[in-house]
Amino acid sequence: GKETPASSPPSGEKAPASKFETIDVTNTDGVCKIMLNRPEKKNALNFQMYEEIGNALNEAGQDDSVVLAVLTGAGDYYCSGNDLGNFMNIPPDGVAKMAEEGGVILEKFVRSFIDFPKPLISLINGPAVGVSVTVLGLFDAVYATDKATFHTPFTSLGQSPEGCSSYTFPRLMGTAKASELLLFNRKITAVEAMERNLVTEVFPDHAFKQEATARVEKFAKLPKNSLQKSRNLTRDQLRETLHRVNKQECDVLVERWQSEECLMAIMNFFTAKGSKL
Amino acid sequence: GKETPASSPPSGEKAPASKFETIDVTNTDGVCKIMLNRPEKKNALNFQMYEEIGNALNEAGQDDSVVLAVLTGAGDYYCSGNDLGNFMNIPPDGVAKMAEEGGVILEKFVRSFIDFPKPLISLINGPAVGVSVTVLGLFDAVYATDKATFHTPFTSLGQSPEGCSSYTFPRLMGTAKASELLLFNRKITAVEAMERNLVTEVFPDHAFKQEATARVEKFAKLPKNSLQKSRNLTRDQLRETLHRVNKQECDVLVERWQSEECLMAIMNFFTAKGSKL
Amino acid sequence: GKETPASSPPSGEKAPASKFETIDVTNTDGVCKIMLNRPEKKNALNFQMYEEIGNALNEAGQDDSVVLAVLTGAGDYYCSGNDLGNFMNIPPDGVAKMAEEGGVILEKFVRSFIDFPKPLISLINGPAVGVSVTVLGLFDAVYATDKATFHTPFTSLGQSPEGCSSYTFPRLMGTAKASELLLFNRKITAVEAMERNLVTEVFPDHAFKQEATARVEKFAKLPKNSLQKSRNLTRDQLRETLHRVNKQECDVLVERWQSEECLMAIMNFFTAKGSKL
Repeated sequence: GKETPASSPPSGEKAPASKFETIDVTNTDGVCKIMLNRPEKKNALNFQMYEEIGNALNEAGQDDSVVLAVLTGAGDYYCSGNDLGNFMNIPPDGVAKMAEEGGVILEKFVRSFIDFPKPLISLINGPAVGVSVTVLGLFDAVYATDKATFHTPFTSLGQSPEGCSSYTFPRLMGTAKASELLLFNRKITAVEAMERNLVTEVFPDHAFKQEATARVEKFAKLPKNSLQKSRNLTRDQLRETLHRVNKQECDVLVERWQSEECLMAIMNFFTAKGSKL
Repeated sequence: GKETPASSPPSGEKAPASKFETIDVTNTDGVCKIMLNRPEKKNALNFQMYEEIGNALNEAGQDDSVVLAVLTGAGDYYCSGNDLGNFMNIPPDGVAKMAEEGGVILEKFVRSFIDFPKPLISLINGPAVGVSVTVLGLFDAVYATDKATFHTPFTSLGQSPEGCSSYTFPRLMGTAKASELLLFNRKITAVEAMERNLVTEVFPDHAFKQEATARVEKFAKLPKNSLQKSRNLTRDQLRETLHRVNKQECDVLVERWQSEECLMAIMNFFTAKGSKL
Repeated sequence: GKETPASSPPSGEKAPASKFETIDVTNTDGVCKIMLNRPEKKNALNFQMYEEIGNALNEAGQDDSVVLAVLTGAGDYYCSGNDLGNFMNIPPDGVAKMAEEGGVILEKFVRSFIDFPKPLISLINGPAVGVSVTVLGLFDAVYATDKATFHTPFTSLGQSPEGCSSYTFPRLMGTAKASELLLFNRKITAVEAMERNLVTEVFPDHAFKQEATARVEKFAKLPKNSLQKSRNLTRDQLRETLHRVNKQECDVLVERWQSEECLMAIMNFFTAKGSKL
């Protein structure tokens, strides 16, 4: 299959440097692959990365050559979640201002998943943390290596769930199991995530890339309009609810980010060397 | 138990020929059993069969002697889904007319499941395809032989899900697993269907009929009003949503049936000898 | 940890007799533990017990020292459900009056679970029956001994589901499996309840108390506001629906309690010596 950078120029012209710095985007035979590309930071999401992922999804949604989109991570991690460094640059207007801006960025980021108009597939190549886990309820298929883990330690950081997980997780696995993840900070394996309906299929690490890629390539050859209309029937049933939940979750987080519980927890995180969640 | 054709005359009179041609309906000790009866066509649903099943359900709902209804198939198949022959008789007004009429028939058919006012049980005696699978989310119990398979190859035929499955399947098994069935054409086994909450219990084929029948007969002896009111509490929570989803799904299918993707896929199906979905 | 009776007086004063007669309530290190305490009646719920549990939850919700609440049973049973003796004291105004009053008590009881504003954890120490099972869909975590069983024999008693189970159970396990419990009187094991998302985790009986207590104590040390706000995001998504379902279920039960089916079933229950549900 021909592989081109997203929005590549007509052939013959020299490809420009990618407009994205934190992600790597390629379009090949109907598949738009968005790869989180800060492996040295375990693909932690800084503000620029939130924006670039959202922009890449919006472009893929509008690009007629794209049948479906794939999200994955470069290196050993899928994504280590929100970059806590985002909380380090307190602006002159202080914590309240930072929290408000963070809420706007997060709500927009999650909205780009809710409204993505085509099948969206995640290839979980390693540990997944925080918001990279919670948005999985908005994906149409999730393939994972057996080396992947799933961790959403919100309350241990004084925070609260996002990515519509306060709605999607109880719907996927029941409240009694969703609370283990969303309230009580339990880290689960790929197989457990499959049993809880977060993950479609788990592969041994040595076979993961090949097996997952084979599925994605096959799906991208299906009748495109049929795929898109079928998929959006399911999304349309929940769209309004998902937008409402996203807003509520971001409002609570903006409050949390200004709370003493959260500020203490983050301070402890940075001061405790080798601290583990 | 005494077995009589539905709406049988007083004993002593000669039973009339059944008013149904494509299904076989019997009422015995509170159980109305509706058997799809075109085994030579693998119980594919032609337009007459959609109508007759809907009518049989409506009558069973109103018949005070009926405690619950059972749907099953004659022969080796449970049901091979929509009879693609339905697309072969293009009326003078053309494809648009045919698609519109198909949409009306389908919406009415699914509505008769949504509004059936008593427990509804499916005995899956063999492979189940298409709409016979998607309406299972509207049943109160589903017993299957281990020879059964479940297949909904909508997108490979340029079509889209119905039977309220775009709502019920993600609710039963999560979006990541529902998409395998509704978007990506994966055929699953009876045990997989049970793990995904589509099926209540699976039996070895040799024991299937006896085990499933024993359960149905026992259930039909329970206090009738209690059974009906308890069941409708659950249905009433979703009734409005289900009707809305049914309508949306039929609207999309009417559009699909007129699309080039769908017409090409069906033409290929008929021209490719021995083609497999 | 220090253990005190709920609403204990300042130290130095003599503790008054507990204001509760049917339950035992203690507050220790953020955990409010409510123990059903009629072991000689297998912790069957009489009208006083419904009221006292509701009152204990309301107090725990308002008490700032309480981080989360735990419900468990004294003795070998968790709870044997509604005390059928509640139906024995027919007031002068007759069955209708008794049914109406029962409906008011039940709706208020379930409402105290829906609106409890903190994490709510159940420790299932033995068999659970009826409403003690159905309200589990409103808990945030459920830990069970492997000796526990779960049984909701509503239709065999001419009755109907409550505790919001007509909504929560199909959402947890699908209609095909929920009906086995809510319509067809099947008793399930602790492991089956875990597979159906009613239970978080099952322990061997000898380890149950220690393992479950360790989890509860750990959770109670998490940042309190974060825990409460995170939990209520999930509850808020469903609160309106749950109140509506609770009302509908109680209305149906008030009708059921006056029905011949129910009165006959309860009479049979009391006259048949050694009768088993």
